[in-house]
Amino acid sequence: MPELPIIHGRSLVDTDGYRRETIDLEFSNGERRKYQRLTSRGHGAVMIAAIPRPGTVLLIREYAAGVHRYELGLPKGRMDAGESVLDAANRELKEETGFGARTLTHLRGITLAPGYMTHEIQLVLAEDLYEERLPGDEPEELEVVPWQLDSLHELVLREDCSEGRSLAGLFIVREVLKARG
Amino acid sequence: MPELPIIHGRSLVDTDGYRRETIDLEFSNGERRKYQRLTSRGHGAVMIAAIPRPGTVLLIREYAAGVHRYELGLPKGRMDAGESVLDAANRELKEETGFGARTLTHLRGITLAPGYMTHEIQLVLAEDLYEERLPGDEPEELEVVPWQLDSLHELVLREDCSEGRSLAGLFIVREVLKARG
Repeated sequence: MPELPIIHGRSLVDTDGYRRETIDLEFSNGERRKYQRLTSRGHGAVMIAAIPRPGTVLLIREYAAGVHRYELGLPKGRMDAGESVLDAANRELKEETGFGARTLTHLRGITLAPGYMTHEIQLVLAEDLYEERLPGDEPEELEVVPWQLDSLHELVLREDCSEGRSLAGLFIVREVLKARG
Repeated sequence: MPELPIIHGRSLVDTDGYRRETIDLEFSNGERRKYQRLTSRGHGAVMIAAIPRPGTVLLIREYAAGVHRYELGLPKGRMDAGESVLDAANRELKEETGFGARTLTHLRGITLAPGYMTHEIQLVLAEDLYEERLPGDEPEELEVVPWQLDSLHELVLREDCSEGRSLAGLFIVREVLKARG
């Protein structure tokens, strides 16, 4: 693997809501390039795969303003200041599905567009569920859709289940549960 | 499924490189909200899963400025003006791996963060490969890493293979090829 490029300089432009950084790079072969990247704000984000019974995962159906349609995907949300990954996952799960989890396992980080964004979301497996709802900030109640993990091949044919991170998270969880046996 | 919210207004702010849109929404239950979204520029993007021999897919290792590390993932790139999805896929494949494909199949669009971005990349399956290299704009040569599709469980344990779209694309391709038998 090549050595990492040297960062010779950085400059940050903060426009209301988004921060754009220009980094001045020297690659190990001597090539100099300026790359731009969007830097994430806030305290991180979590995505939760909750298992209500063996072989089933909870999806939610939510309005997605970027594509102006209702999308099926894993529950997710931003972490609060000082909140741990697992606490944030359980809070978001309660807000979006009406369930909490007694067993929470951090599986891995999933990046958005690592070539030009710093954003990363933490995938958490949630098991041993119990009913508990916390009020969220959604404009309408979210529909919870249980999905069979052995039917992901049907999910990937649906136009309204399109998010890379959600699809990746579902397949990763299936691999993890399969490895457990 | 609820009716789509009504869009009562939009306003666009264009800052060098990124366009941010505020949309004024009325949900079917009467709730009014303003949502912000990043709108993509350019002519779209493609991601290519190239199969050099049955059961194997070509990954590339490339410096990812957003996370400042070398990342393993599927080849991808932006479409040029007037270029079709399949032509863009074959061009990017030639630039990044040194192979072209006689058989190209558009599988589906994969969105980045549909809640607040309009971005979508088109996943293309590339088969019947032949050697042909086109010059790319990369600062250094990319390493091509063939990976076994039945070893995706090992790939998802690697920190340096983190991109949701790439991981999703790999699992989708495995499902598609498996369904073919």
